[in-house]
Amino acid sequence: MILYEAADSGNCYKVRLLLGQLGISYERVELDVIDRSDRPQRLGALNPALRVPTLVLDDGRPLAESGAILWYFGDGTQYVPEDPYDRAQVLQWMFFEQYCVEPNIAVLRFWKKIAKLTPGPGEEKAKADAGAEALAAMESYITGKEFFVGEVYTIADIALYGYTHVADEGGFDLGLYPELMTWMTRVEGQDGFVRIGD
Amino acid sequence: MILYEAADSGNCYKVRLLLGQLGISYERVELDVIDRSDRPQRLGALNPALRVPTLVLDDGRPLAESGAILWYFGDGTQYVPEDPYDRAQVLQWMFFEQYCVEPNIAVLRFWKKIAKLTPGPGEEKAKADAGAEALAAMESYITGKEFFVGEVYTIADIALYGYTHVADEGGFDLGLYPELMTWMTRVEGQDGFVRIGD
Repeated sequence: MILYEAADSGNCYKVRLLLGQLGISYERVELDVIDRSDRPQRLGALNPALRVPTLVLDDGRPLAESGAILWYFGDGTQYVPEDPYDRAQVLQWMFFEQYCVEPNIAVLRFWKKIAKLTPGPGEEKAKADAGAEALAAMESYITGKEFFVGEVYTIADIALYGYTHVADEGGFDLGLYPELMTWMTRVEGQDGFVRIGD
Repeated sequence: MILYEAADSGNCYKVRLLLGQLGISYERVELDVIDRSDRPQRLGALNPALRVPTLVLDDGRPLAESGAILWYFGDGTQYVPEDPYDRAQVLQWMFFEQYCVEPNIAVLRFWKKIAKLTPGPGEEKAKADAGAEALAAMESYITGKEFFVGEVYTIADIALYGYTHVADEGGFDLGLYPELMTWMTRVEGQDGFVRIGD
């Protein structure tokens, strides 16, 4: 199995974290996240969005979008619940993450830490505000809970952890979200946990 | 069951389309999409993102994010396949839609048609280019296929149809995507199909 990915990408890290916890081995192929000119050649036949992570299964079939990959490997394991409502809640948080967290926190982090770009002030403020709103929504929800869905660690926690734990690299002050900090410690204590840099 | 929604929202329409095709009845509660000041009061206890669609099941439990709602009601019916790879592909296209289609096509449509806002020229061009790229990726993928996953109509088609079929209201020329036009005709021919204005 081949994972086309980028070491710094939180979306790719989510997949590595779950596959690590499941003990599934694979080959990592690093793609450039700045110079994307080879994407059509490398990913054109595999992923219409030309983004990482893109996975190629052992039988050659491709699968893209971190959330879909997490579901494919997680379903049927302890990391995806069986109850239909809990399953829908896992997806709710995964869609929330891709709509409210990733486009703000991951993009600011990409600009600042990876691409070393200076966004326009309006552009930066819009993403900083929206990212802070997402973190505040998560902080409020996790208060009094151990994990986001059903009081057990699921792929919803993996999806939310991916960029939240590196939000400081996008200019966010995680100290403002003590309940999220505690939740992140819980995630880091799970069996088979690996760090983004591992 | 109560669906907090907005008649013009493609995300809400996706839910109405599936529930209509499944023959599930519910009460519609319209929220304002311009003046959102009542959102914390109306949705605060139901949806951390304070967005529509937000559904309240008959037993009072809330569920948000159109993709999660589609999965909750679609799974176990003809609209979600049984094969694990096909299921992951359904999710792949649903995440693609929320990341590549919705933030560009839906937002441009909202600015132009609903809020009557004039975006900055750079802002408009960025979303027009990214939206056109998403449509081109879909056009290329659907060529030679009947539907997006497994050659049958699924909630992936519902999710992608939601904003694609009204992309002209965001300034996109759908005539550039003849294969998508044919696919949309196929979607509109499905049993129980309802229009966004119904």
